[in-house]
Amino acid sequence: MQLGALGMRAMRDRRAIMSITTGIVGAAGFAGVELTRVALRHPDLQLTVVTSNELAGVRVADEYPAFLGVTDLAYTTHDDPKLDECELVFLAVPHTAALAMAPRLVARGAVVIDLSADFRLKDPAVYEQWYKTPHTATDLLAQAAFGLPELFPDDLARVAARRAQGEGVLVGCAGCYPTATSLAAAPAIRAGMLADAGAVVVDAISGVTGAGKKATARTHYCFADENLEAYGVATHRHTPEIEQILGIEGRLVFTPHLAPLNRGLLSTVNIPLASGAPRTTEEAVEVYSEFYRNSAFVRVLPAGKMPKTSSVAGSNYAHIGVAVNDRAGVLIAVGAIDNIGKGAADQAMQCANIVLGLPETRALEPVAVPVG
Amino acid sequence: MQLGALGMRAMRDRRAIMSITTGIVGAAGFAGVELTRVALRHPDLQLTVVTSNELAGVRVADEYPAFLGVTDLAYTTHDDPKLDECELVFLAVPHTAALAMAPRLVARGAVVIDLSADFRLKDPAVYEQWYKTPHTATDLLAQAAFGLPELFPDDLARVAARRAQGEGVLVGCAGCYPTATSLAAAPAIRAGMLADAGAVVVDAISGVTGAGKKATARTHYCFADENLEAYGVATHRHTPEIEQILGIEGRLVFTPHLAPLNRGLLSTVNIPLASGAPRTTEEAVEVYSEFYRNSAFVRVLPAGKMPKTSSVAGSNYAHIGVAVNDRAGVLIAVGAIDNIGKGAADQAMQCANIVLGLPETRALEPVAVPVG
Amino acid sequence: MQLGALGMRAMRDRRAIMSITTGIVGAAGFAGVELTRVALRHPDLQLTVVTSNELAGVRVADEYPAFLGVTDLAYTTHDDPKLDECELVFLAVPHTAALAMAPRLVARGAVVIDLSADFRLKDPAVYEQWYKTPHTATDLLAQAAFGLPELFPDDLARVAARRAQGEGVLVGCAGCYPTATSLAAAPAIRAGMLADAGAVVVDAISGVTGAGKKATARTHYCFADENLEAYGVATHRHTPEIEQILGIEGRLVFTPHLAPLNRGLLSTVNIPLASGAPRTTEEAVEVYSEFYRNSAFVRVLPAGKMPKTSSVAGSNYAHIGVAVNDRAGVLIAVGAIDNIGKGAADQAMQCANIVLGLPETRALEPVAVPVG
Amino acid sequence: MQLGALGMRAMRDRRAIMSITTGIVGAAGFAGVELTRVALRHPDLQLTVVTSNELAGVRVADEYPAFLGVTDLAYTTHDDPKLDECELVFLAVPHTAALAMAPRLVARGAVVIDLSADFRLKDPAVYEQWYKTPHTATDLLAQAAFGLPELFPDDLARVAARRAQGEGVLVGCAGCYPTATSLAAAPAIRAGMLADAGAVVVDAISGVTGAGKKATARTHYCFADENLEAYGVATHRHTPEIEQILGIEGRLVFTPHLAPLNRGLLSTVNIPLASGAPRTTEEAVEVYSEFYRNSAFVRVLPAGKMPKTSSVAGSNYAHIGVAVNDRAGVLIAVGAIDNIGKGAADQAMQCANIVLGLPETRALEPVAVPVG
Repeated sequence: MQLGALGMRAMRDRRAIMSITTGIVGAAGFAGVELTRVALRHPDLQLTVVTSNELAGVRVADEYPAFLGVTDLAYTTHDDPKLDECELVFLAVPHTAALAMAPRLVARGAVVIDLSADFRLKDPAVYEQWYKTPHTATDLLAQAAFGLPELFPDDLARVAARRAQGEGVLVGCAGCYPTATSLAAAPAIRAGMLADAGAVVVDAISGVTGAGKKATARTHYCFADENLEAYGVATHRHTPEIEQILGIEGRLVFTPHLAPLNRGLLSTVNIPLASGAPRTTEEAVEVYSEFYRNSAFVRVLPAGKMPKTSSVAGSNYAHIGVAVNDRAGVLIAVGAIDNIGKGAADQAMQCANIVLGLPETRALEPVAVPVG
Repeated sequence: MQLGALGMRAMRDRRAIMSITTGIVGAAGFAGVELTRVALRHPDLQLTVVTSNELAGVRVADEYPAFLGVTDLAYTTHDDPKLDECELVFLAVPHTAALAMAPRLVARGAVVIDLSADFRLKDPAVYEQWYKTPHTATDLLAQAAFGLPELFPDDLARVAARRAQGEGVLVGCAGCYPTATSLAAAPAIRAGMLADAGAVVVDAISGVTGAGKKATARTHYCFADENLEAYGVATHRHTPEIEQILGIEGRLVFTPHLAPLNRGLLSTVNIPLASGAPRTTEEAVEVYSEFYRNSAFVRVLPAGKMPKTSSVAGSNYAHIGVAVNDRAGVLIAVGAIDNIGKGAADQAMQCANIVLGLPETRALEPVAVPVG
Repeated sequence: MQLGALGMRAMRDRRAIMSITTGIVGAAGFAGVELTRVALRHPDLQLTVVTSNELAGVRVADEYPAFLGVTDLAYTTHDDPKLDECELVFLAVPHTAALAMAPRLVARGAVVIDLSADFRLKDPAVYEQWYKTPHTATDLLAQAAFGLPELFPDDLARVAARRAQGEGVLVGCAGCYPTATSLAAAPAIRAGMLADAGAVVVDAISGVTGAGKKATARTHYCFADENLEAYGVATHRHTPEIEQILGIEGRLVFTPHLAPLNRGLLSTVNIPLASGAPRTTEEAVEVYSEFYRNSAFVRVLPAGKMPKTSSVAGSNYAHIGVAVNDRAGVLIAVGAIDNIGKGAADQAMQCANIVLGLPETRALEPVAVPVG
Repeated sequence: MQLGALGMRAMRDRRAIMSITTGIVGAAGFAGVELTRVALRHPDLQLTVVTSNELAGVRVADEYPAFLGVTDLAYTTHDDPKLDECELVFLAVPHTAALAMAPRLVARGAVVIDLSADFRLKDPAVYEQWYKTPHTATDLLAQAAFGLPELFPDDLARVAARRAQGEGVLVGCAGCYPTATSLAAAPAIRAGMLADAGAVVVDAISGVTGAGKKATARTHYCFADENLEAYGVATHRHTPEIEQILGIEGRLVFTPHLAPLNRGLLSTVNIPLASGAPRTTEEAVEVYSEFYRNSAFVRVLPAGKMPKTSSVAGSNYAHIGVAVNDRAGVLIAVGAIDNIGKGAADQAMQCANIVLGLPETRALEPVAVPVG
């Protein structure tokens, strides 16, 4: 099928103002295809390369028919030389693959936004402990920014400044569970509300896109449908990342769960309260509202309301609800995101916007689909 | 919760270029809320009124948290005087309610886009037969355009011309089943491929949004989930509308089905082939591809491929696949749309764009969410 | 429709050995209809009355077509005099309704199995505090057994002994969340593994049947589908029941969540470990396996495995997995049940079997549907 | 994990009356595991062998935890010599595999119930045409019974008589689509209601278990969820089987669809009416009710009602609704089954019961789960 005449014209109109050549490595996975969608609607980017070693030669629109008549791009392999011409490169590949590719791209001056786990953990020893492989780019790791804009704006600003001087830079974006969990936990913890002792218990639930595009028993419809289960109990690799973000090393009990939906991630964070901490839900809501007062993407719900993942599906928004259990002395903070949106592709684009000096919200304005 | 500072600024930026004041009557239903979403991102519209008799006084963002920080609009009643100031009014109300409201709005010069069934059937007697109530605005009916742009472009052009001269006009948008079914059937029928005798059998499947927002036994999660059923067999009111569009009075057997998904509608159309008609799938694909060659929103799939509703969810696209069963002499054409998108809100906006002289695709460019 | 000839014959064959006349009050709700299903296959029961004030006069098979040709029973009102002839009565009604009906039934000698919350909390003051209404049958409450057989066998044995002497007796069955949570928590807590201080955090997830049969915005397919949310945070009425069962008054943080599935409940329990408690998953598994060694319905999974609700759907089984987070000193125990099965109707039948002196497993043998 | 003490005792009790040694070849697929469940609760069968080449050595309960504490059986390979000792053997393997195994089993005297497509098509040439491989056991094919008891009772009686004389026999069970479709179509067609010309259009919808256990892009949760699609259009291999059953060679237009549910199959059959045929829904209902008057498993719904697949999930029941479109002269008959139940495993057990001289309903009595 050919790109329709009108589709072509619309593409040309947009291309006129596009300037930043962009590539996505690992563009056929769930985060990669969402990045493709967002990049194609971004007025300042020109998407020129999408790679997938498995699907090289296949058109994006043949793998994902939603792109029929929207783009004629086809996947190429990860070593496509056109990547070398990209000013902006997203890496949506498994860990260790990003480790192998990022240094060269940064060295030649690209803005690299990495969605893998390779540049999240600041301590290479912790990386090796949890990922069972040594970190081979510790210099780059040291200068990389951590991609969670609401909690580490200065880190991204630092890298944006270097980029403004023409340097290649790297952002290691936060994982999906760490994003929802930390957005829900950070306001209380940074306000000193966490008790000195006691575990921070996080029980989080993810849709099946979180398990990846590979067809397995776990992702088979008939096993995921009408089922709930916990997985990676006491062993999930997002544990050290959350502990690092929140500064609660060794105190996190993190249990992820799988539920039968496509996109959506809900993280319920239980924070034992310090003796002097506020003990009413209303006070907690105020702390949170103040914290996110200027945030473009995080909404704090009023006391008595809790977030729904359907409210943020397909978007970069995060909704947060809080309540205090005064009898047990625990703050419950619940964060809802789209694991592929704010938890992956959309947050990566938000980071790219910031580093490139564009408005943070560029191409990310759409309201979530309110029903369905 | 207040609109975030950044959200407010983004709103102001957009408002600068907004000019067409717009109202949505019945804005809290499933079609209405999707219209709200699309209208808010439309650069030429300024959405000033959203009405819902049941939810008057409630903020859109409180009913649909996806709008938190996106709009501060609250629902008013259907008789909100601000509607009189709107240049563009969408009616997303049940049939007979539109009949009561449309004439006055048109008379005072508004562009009225009606999503109900009140102005679809050209013959008032047929309307009365199927809807058990007389048509009380037959003059307006006679001059209304039928809102299915791909099949009746001249009708919309006629109304757009009148609107360009300052007159009030009305578009009666096609229903969801008629849209998917007719887009799938029309190319063959207009090419003379339909046999002189024999029924045109249409079996269509809809997601649960098609059953409306009212909480009933049918829409209860526990009854809709893990279930398939046919309904309205031999009696569904979309029957005469499809027959009118396709010119096959008395020959349609239309059976709608309900399946456990939110948004999505698939219509499988079985067309008995005239003796001289092409008998291969390849020829049929060519007929269809030619028919939709210049269409911005309809894609014809290559031989051997069939459409998926997930490819068009949240969009105004329609995907169509065709195959010929040569043994039985029947063409099978399958159309996939989002029943709330191309089947309701998005198509209504497409009609509004055309009548207002804007590019047909304005605010409708987004690619469907490819996964989920 | 008439009962088919073969169905009738099968019914007669079964009736020959039925002896215990049985009624279900509130038989049209989700727990009630599951009880109906189980009672009809129970070889020792003869189901003679099913009541529903809303559906009085309607046949069970017309409301739930799964019973077509299986039973000709029709719903009657709650005051059906035939209830007075029942030896066994299940109350599947909202709280306070059971409070009003149970005393008279017990006084005239019936075995009453109450699925409501009215006879679960041993302290009437706690009942009044959480349910905002005084307990009006405190004598009966004092002698009622708590219906959670695996944890309180002696209580049921006590009541069974009284019943064997011809007395009317009452069992107040455990709620769905308390059942899954307590089965997962009790072995560790009874073994003294719980630390002296620190909250017991329970995050549980339920399918939508848990929200009841009433059609509401919450149970509407389009709002429940593709959504995750927490509800009743810090306020859910199962809190005092769980605290009572486990003896952890004031230490429980319980957050229930809703996920898009029909039946299934997963409870993830986080138990801060006492200083001397076992610190390995293997040791914990051993404690649990020993605890449930003779249980007909509870299975403890080996170290490294976690339960899935689909494995117990439609059954009275509970599956439990445990793991230790040694860094944080917390035991994570995950319990999976069918909220309508072990969490309501099937457990009620298990209690009835015990009180009536029948094998505990009677009519509860079926294996869960392994797929789907 | 060991089988619980109570579970073991229950097993022993049952074994006492078991006598017919039974094996299931291909026991780990979706039909195979349902057969395992039904065979374990069958009082006259002793399940001794379950095979799976992929999972040889794995316990059933480790692959499907629903069997934890229920059976300690483990999968062996298809060449397990214990199969030679089985009086009853189910073949739940892909086509051609059954063709290779069945002759030897029948020759040594076993009752073989084949769920594959290998012994369904009576004409070997038709088999070769659609399955692209010659039929290598045409003698056995000639004497095999067709396993669709409601429509071909004499064929099964013939084979049961031979079996009563000690011979090995074979039943080739109907496929899932042919079962639902033919049960819905046969009463009208056998009553002479089908017109002489015109296609019989069948649009059927299946849950994802119909696509099999293999993890593929089609069965991936994220692609099946929230999606509807047609597949195998004009080419599906169930076409000749349905045509053979109904005697409508060359007149069938069969389009299967995939919908997001686990188990359930709905077939909507459109039958052009002969000139003298009854033209009201009430008359049609009467024809159907009379046809299935003595059926243990098929229910005909009253005029105005249509079946739901959830009403028959997990069972051997079929529900059928009919309506007449008098304008177009077409009878619409809708059949609902569980594709794994009546469409595969349960019907296979029904056939086994009949051939073995047991009551047809043995082990198949359970009512479908009415909710969920």
